Amino acid sequence: MENSYIVGKNAIIEALESNTRQFNRILISNNSRSDEKIEKIKELAKTRGIIFQFVNKEKLNQISPENRHQGIVALLSPIKYWDLDDFLEKHNDELTSVVILDGVEDSQNLGAIIRSCVCAGVKGIILPSRRGVLVNSTVEKTSAGAVNHISIIKVNSIVNAVQRLKENNYWVIAADHHAKDNYYEIDYTDMNFALIMGAEHSGISKSLLKLSDFVVKIPMLTNFNSLNVSNATAIILFESVKQKLTKFSKKEGKNG
Amino acid sequence: MENSYIVGKNAIIEALESNTRQFNRILISNNSRSDEKIEKIKELAKTRGIIFQFVNKEKLNQISPENRHQGIVALLSPIKYWDLDDFLEKHNDELTSVVILDGVEDSQNLGAIIRSCVCAGVKGIILPSRRGVLVNSTVEKTSAGAVNHISIIKVNSIVNAVQRLKENNYWVIAADHHAKDNYYEIDYTDMNFALIMGAEHSGISKSLLKLSDFVVKIPMLTNFNSLNVSNATAIILFESVKQKLTKFSKKEGKNG
Repeated sequence: MENSYIVGKNAIIEALESNTRQFNRILISNNSRSDEKIEKIKELAKTRGIIFQFVNKEKLNQISPENRHQGIVALLSPIKYWDLDDFLEKHNDELTSVVILDGVEDSQNLGAIIRSCVCAGVKGIILPSRRGVLVNSTVEKTSAGAVNHISIIKVNSIVNAVQRLKENNYWVIAADHHAKDNYYEIDYTDMNFALIMGAEHSGISKSLLKLSDFVVKIPMLTNFNSLNVSNATAIILFESVKQKLTKFSKKEGKNG
Repeated sequence: MENSYIVGKNAIIEALESNTRQFNRILISNNSRSDEKIEKIKELAKTRGIIFQFVNKEKLNQISPENRHQGIVALLSPIKYWDLDDFLEKHNDELTSVVILDGVEDSQNLGAIIRSCVCAGVKGIILPSRRGVLVNSTVEKTSAGAVNHISIIKVNSIVNAVQRLKENNYWVIAADHHAKDNYYEIDYTDMNFALIMGAEHSGISKSLLKLSDFVVKIPMLTNFNSLNVSNATAIILFESVKQKLTKFSKKEGKNG
C-alpha cells in the first residue's frame, strides 16, 4: 500500500468515519493524555480492526516534522483522485456544482476551500496536476477531514476540463476582480455550474476567462482589493447556498 | 524603538505606503534577484529615507526562521493597538462596524480575517489581550498589509468591550451554528454593528451569546458543519457589503 499520513484529531476521525481510506495503523505518543476525541479514534479503530500503536513522541515528530501533530498520526492510503469523466458520469442526473482552482499554492487555503465546498454542497474540486498544491497532510488537517466528503479531480489541462464541463451542460463562472458583473447577480439555483478561482497572486489565465460564460467580481467597500482566495471562494459559494435555500423555503411557504 | 519585523513583499509595500509605521531598516538578501516589487520597495524606502541593507541569506533566516521571507525583511515598529474608547470617539459620527474575535488562535486565519475586514469596510477588529493570537509577523504577511488599514483594538475583557459597544449604539451580532436565524435575515445597512466570531474549536462563550442582540448561523447544504473561521467571517461580512451596495444602487436608480 502506498503510504500517506494525516495529523489532527478531527481529520483522523473524519477519515475513519468516511470509510473511504485504507488505514495502515494509527500511532499515538505514549505520553500524550487521552481525551474525548482520542477515545473516539480508539473506538473507531477497534471497530475497523486498525492497529493502534504507542510510540515515542520523537517517532511522530519524524513522520510529521512540519505539522503540529497533537500526539497522534494516522498512516493510511492517500486520497484517490477522480477522473473528470467518471465524476461527470456519476453526477449525470442531478444539478451539480464544482470548483476549479487554477493553481492555488497554499495548503491552508486549499484545506479551507475544501471545507467550504463540502459545507456548500459542491460535489467536486478540480486541480491541475502540475501547478499549485495537491492534497498533502497540511491540506488534510486544515480541511478538518472534509477531503473525504468530496471528489478531488486531478486534470492535466484546466482548459480541456472546462471544455468537457461545457459539453456536459455546466455554466462556467470565473471570479476576476476586473469583471463588470457582481457575483450576486447570477442565479445559481437552476444550473450545473463550475466556479473558477485563480491562484493567490496571478489570478485566472486569459484563456480560461475567454471560455467562461460569466465573469464576476466581489465588489468591495474600500480600495483595498485583496481578499484571500479561500475567503473569496466562500463568499461566492455561500451566495449560491443562500439562493438555493431561499428559493426552497419560498416554495415550501407557497405549498404549505 | 521597540522592534518588530515583517516579511512578504506585499506586506512591506503596504506598510511603507500606509505611512503608519516607523521603519528601522530593510534587509535584503545579497543574492536575491530584483523584481518589480523589490524595486518599488527600494523606491519607497529611498523617498522616506529608510536604510536599505544587503545581507547574507543566513541573517534573514535568523531573523525570520519560520516564515518564507522571499529574500527581504523589514525591521520596524510594531503596530499600535487602539484603545476601544479612542476608537469609539474617532468614529462617533458615522455608521461603523467592528469584528470581535473571541480567541481565534491561528495566525493565518487572523491575517485572512483582517484582509476581509478591510475589503468590507470594517473599521476595527477587537482582540482579547490574553487569549488567542495577536498581530505577529505571520499575521502581517497573510494580511498582505491590510493590518495597516484598520484599527486593531486590544481589550482585557471582551464582555466589557461588548457592553461599551452597546452603550455606544452598536448592535451586537454573534455567529453560532446553533442559532435559529440565518445571517442573511438581518438588515446590516442602517446600524453600527459588532460581529462576534468564536475561536476555531470552542466557539463563542455563553456570556457573550447572552449579551448579543442577534445570534445567527450560516446555513449549510450538507451536514458537514465546519467552516473555517475566516471563511465564515467573510461570508457574513460580504452579505453586509452586498446589502449596502444594493441599497445604494437602488437609491441611485430612483434619483437618477
